[in-house]
Amino acid sequence: MSLNLQDLSFDFASLRAAYAAGTPVRTVIAEAMRRCASDAHHAFIHRLTDAQIEPYLALLDGVDPASLPLYGVPFAIKDNIDLAHIPTTAGCPEYAYTPGESAFLVQQLIAAGAVPLGKANLDQFATGLNGTRSPYGACRNAFNPDFVSGGSSSGSAVSVAKGWVSFSLGTDTAGSGRVPASFNNLIGLKPSLGLLSATGVVPACRSVDTVSIFALTAADAQAVLAVSAVPDEADVFSRAAKPFGVDFSSGPFRFGVPRAQDLAFFGNAAAAALFSESVERMKALGGTAVEVNLSPFLEAARLLYEGPWVAERYVAIKNFIETQPDAVFPPVRTIVQGGKAWTAADAFAASYRLKALKRVCDAVWNEIDCMLTPTAGTIYRIADMQADPIRLNSNLGYYTNFMNLLDYAAVAAPAGFQAEGDAKGLPWGVTLAAPAFKDLPLLRLADHFHRAQVLSLGATATKLADIPSIAADLPNRSNIAGTIKVAVCGAHLSGLPLNWQLTQRGARLLGMHKSAPEYKFYALAGGTVQRPGMVRAAEGGAAIHMEVWELPAEHFGSFVDGIPAPLGIGKVRLADGSWVSGFVCEAIGVEGGTDITQLGSWREWLAQQA
Amino acid sequence: MSLNLQDLSFDFASLRAAYAAGTPVRTVIAEAMRRCASDAHHAFIHRLTDAQIEPYLALLDGVDPASLPLYGVPFAIKDNIDLAHIPTTAGCPEYAYTPGESAFLVQQLIAAGAVPLGKANLDQFATGLNGTRSPYGACRNAFNPDFVSGGSSSGSAVSVAKGWVSFSLGTDTAGSGRVPASFNNLIGLKPSLGLLSATGVVPACRSVDTVSIFALTAADAQAVLAVSAVPDEADVFSRAAKPFGVDFSSGPFRFGVPRAQDLAFFGNAAAAALFSESVERMKALGGTAVEVNLSPFLEAARLLYEGPWVAERYVAIKNFIETQPDAVFPPVRTIVQGGKAWTAADAFAASYRLKALKRVCDAVWNEIDCMLTPTAGTIYRIADMQADPIRLNSNLGYYTNFMNLLDYAAVAAPAGFQAEGDAKGLPWGVTLAAPAFKDLPLLRLADHFHRAQVLSLGATATKLADIPSIAADLPNRSNIAGTIKVAVCGAHLSGLPLNWQLTQRGARLLGMHKSAPEYKFYALAGGTVQRPGMVRAAEGGAAIHMEVWELPAEHFGSFVDGIPAPLGIGKVRLADGSWVSGFVCEAIGVEGGTDITQLGSWREWLAQQA
Repeated sequence: MSLNLQDLSFDFASLRAAYAAGTPVRTVIAEAMRRCASDAHHAFIHRLTDAQIEPYLALLDGVDPASLPLYGVPFAIKDNIDLAHIPTTAGCPEYAYTPGESAFLVQQLIAAGAVPLGKANLDQFATGLNGTRSPYGACRNAFNPDFVSGGSSSGSAVSVAKGWVSFSLGTDTAGSGRVPASFNNLIGLKPSLGLLSATGVVPACRSVDTVSIFALTAADAQAVLAVSAVPDEADVFSRAAKPFGVDFSSGPFRFGVPRAQDLAFFGNAAAAALFSESVERMKALGGTAVEVNLSPFLEAARLLYEGPWVAERYVAIKNFIETQPDAVFPPVRTIVQGGKAWTAADAFAASYRLKALKRVCDAVWNEIDCMLTPTAGTIYRIADMQADPIRLNSNLGYYTNFMNLLDYAAVAAPAGFQAEGDAKGLPWGVTLAAPAFKDLPLLRLADHFHRAQVLSLGATATKLADIPSIAADLPNRSNIAGTIKVAVCGAHLSGLPLNWQLTQRGARLLGMHKSAPEYKFYALAGGTVQRPGMVRAAEGGAAIHMEVWELPAEHFGSFVDGIPAPLGIGKVRLADGSWVSGFVCEAIGVEGGTDITQLGSWREWLAQQA
Repeated sequence: MSLNLQDLSFDFASLRAAYAAGTPVRTVIAEAMRRCASDAHHAFIHRLTDAQIEPYLALLDGVDPASLPLYGVPFAIKDNIDLAHIPTTAGCPEYAYTPGESAFLVQQLIAAGAVPLGKANLDQFATGLNGTRSPYGACRNAFNPDFVSGGSSSGSAVSVAKGWVSFSLGTDTAGSGRVPASFNNLIGLKPSLGLLSATGVVPACRSVDTVSIFALTAADAQAVLAVSAVPDEADVFSRAAKPFGVDFSSGPFRFGVPRAQDLAFFGNAAAAALFSESVERMKALGGTAVEVNLSPFLEAARLLYEGPWVAERYVAIKNFIETQPDAVFPPVRTIVQGGKAWTAADAFAASYRLKALKRVCDAVWNEIDCMLTPTAGTIYRIADMQADPIRLNSNLGYYTNFMNLLDYAAVAAPAGFQAEGDAKGLPWGVTLAAPAFKDLPLLRLADHFHRAQVLSLGATATKLADIPSIAADLPNRSNIAGTIKVAVCGAHLSGLPLNWQLTQRGARLLGMHKSAPEYKFYALAGGTVQRPGMVRAAEGGAAIHMEVWELPAEHFGSFVDGIPAPLGIGKVRLADGSWVSGFVCEAIGVEGGTDITQLGSWREWLAQQA
């Protein structure tokens, strides 16, 4: 074949095509190693030697490339995740140990055919969002080496963006899997907590850590997630996936946008402009923008670095930092040692506060399907970051710190390049977020968003438009989340005796309607609460006043179950011809009742009775 | 009527019979107040006056006793739970405040017809398992005033055992809802965490607290749970019930028994003998005993009092204990002040350890349906307890401390009377435990266990055998079962084209049934899938073959919403007269259809068509 190996894009679709065309895996991996060897960005702490890679290539000998989902896909591993027989440094040479086996999820990837090429640089102990906090050198942005790469998963992002590997593993506690994606024009999937095993991963804040995935496209990130999201008995934080409910990416959707006063770009006008463009792009994709008050989210964010959770970082490396404090990078040492000062009383009190905030924040999901925010408001030069390492790092986490504490899933996606200012020409990105386990709809929407732009992949020359779109191969799940509409015509109307059965379930009134003019309407006899019945009739019917309410699907069942005969929930035709779940009455039930069809309204009947 | 009021048992069944026979509620409540007034046990901190009770009685004026599930049922409230306009002391007069409204779940009980009679004594701030830690006097055992009542819900248990009230509310963090049940011959339900709202309850360890229920019978406890388990938006720890899965009480079951070396009776041979008898009784009920290694459970238990969770007790009353330390009872002060010493690092590390232990402990549920343990290994005299208040109290929690930390539900049940030794003649009890949300199967099994003995209720003369058994089902049970039953008659039957709509939602077939003989049955015209319709009719109806399925309540709503007109979900009457959610058909919908009433079965019709 006439493949020019140097031009081969490492996105999965291009690799699959190359393997299908007969390109040997050893040829592809050799090319990948050649690319990695040019590392002037400090992306790697350790690149595997030929001998170290050989066992993984040997696994693929004689294997049909089509039989393994990640056949011959080169990847990088953040150096706080174990790869067998290679030192894990966590960015601290004095801390390093050499594990006998790979992390649980690295084992899944290798079994799926992926080939590890190296251990990637990081902010030491995954404590940072900028990529400069490493004794192995400040990791340099894939587009401009004077700028930060983002962190803590710095090398993981840069190695993918440069087109050296196809994907990489990062970790994300406060934004470490998203900020570097934004700074290097990548997809950064921060999965729902617990989906990816943490066995063989050096903890940062164990209760809110997750492994993350960097990829050139959302489709690639989805393929990695599909292979690696395997429940792990040995990881006490591991969770099995739950149904994601409505796939909001496939139809009209509502997306949250922070109020103007909650947006922070730290003086970066180009970034502000790109966010405005992103909002418009989401609208063009079928989204309705809903303004969101970000205050409770930001309060939760402050708990992570300004509250007792930092004690988890201390617990993670307590023995090491107590015996070799000088081995820890200064800003990291300051942060981690700060974890000692918090009391258990502080921790419990903060956990109560977080639960209360989560209740408030979660309410937003009744209004929107997902939230759009900048991933980071701006980007900094390496020299500036090193001069003011705590404050500028903190700015980078403004939109990311709350996500894991609140148990949300998030996907960082490219959103264009800065058109002006100091960081002109550098990429910039947004984050799409939703409740836990909505990773797949988020990835699909991120794919649409990504493809709505004319962009190259990472820092490579490959155009996204030349790559197939995300596979619509998700299982057809039943609609078990989201909300359900129900039309009511009697005692459940606003202010009437049974309305609490709706409001207590979190229902909200959508509007007043009339039924199609084909219902007989009766005041039923008997019962402790006076109730009407609507009976659809071939003739003699009228349009009946109704209210349409919306309530969480999970609570609709108990509502229906509580309705006594002769009433039930069927479909009611509204005046506009649409059908909606609503109260219907068994024909037998109207016996002994009063025909009030001509009134057309339960409130009218009640008024006459009063 | 010839009712001798002084002999009226306050179990719910006897009360219902009395009300059905016309006994006025004011007469019953006056008798209850008369009984409470004899309190020589220090069971009450405050008994309501006539004027204070009047508003609750006024609510029942003119109400049909049969229309409210707890009509005229007198109850006591542990004095760390708010009752409007009555001081809440938490066992500490200096701490007392007077709430403007009742606790959320007290409101549910009052709305259901229950009448509060008093605020019950407790170990101060619910810190203790023995009942002596109160400035209002050591609460005395209902059977022998020289012995402890158990605590911390001491007065709650004694007031029920003495037959003064029908049930009572306690709280349970480490055993406070179970140990007093054991010492006073009662059912003590410690529900799954979060089922009962904590709004208006003084916290002990908020993350592992629950309100608990003391009752004379398991049926009564179940009736209280059914009324009061209402999700509360204001309580961040509130949880809706989830399906309990298999009802292991209704068939052969496997029960765990601690290994011999894990059993501790603290020298009480009579208790050891009663436990052996209890194991045999469980076998006679259809149980297979499985030996369980209790070590990981006991390690979890030690975390509660010997680990950082005690910091939650400090958080709960921090401002008070810091300003008025001398107002706190000495052993309570020692314990609560001890909470200050723990660091956040300790708390996080212990939370990791607990998660790991929970994984190990949870594995036991693959082997058994429930676990049988003593509730407390022994009982002590008040004088002995006061002489050695920390160590002896700790002994009482040996089997109870781990339950809430591990998120299990538990029911304490009477298991006989001690035949010898210092505590001869005093009652003794066991605990049945299972994972969260299995409250109902536990209560039913506890009822069987209770009835397998010849026992009186509490310290009263009423024999359990004279009281009806637990109702096999409850109306409106979906709030505590987490599931809903639905009767299907057509395309949703097993193996038919729409059955997947049930199975995909995790539904299971409960059984084959016939409807009451009052339904017309039609093969409907049109539609992509052939479907029948059931129409209840005054005459000409037949009994229709149906399947009753059970599915998670949270998924029932989407099932209903997916049903097209003219079908809907109403109530269908089964052959036994009971009503169940099921398919009904609008009368208009059968036009053009075929009357197949005489076939009585959709499968018959399909067979004829084939």
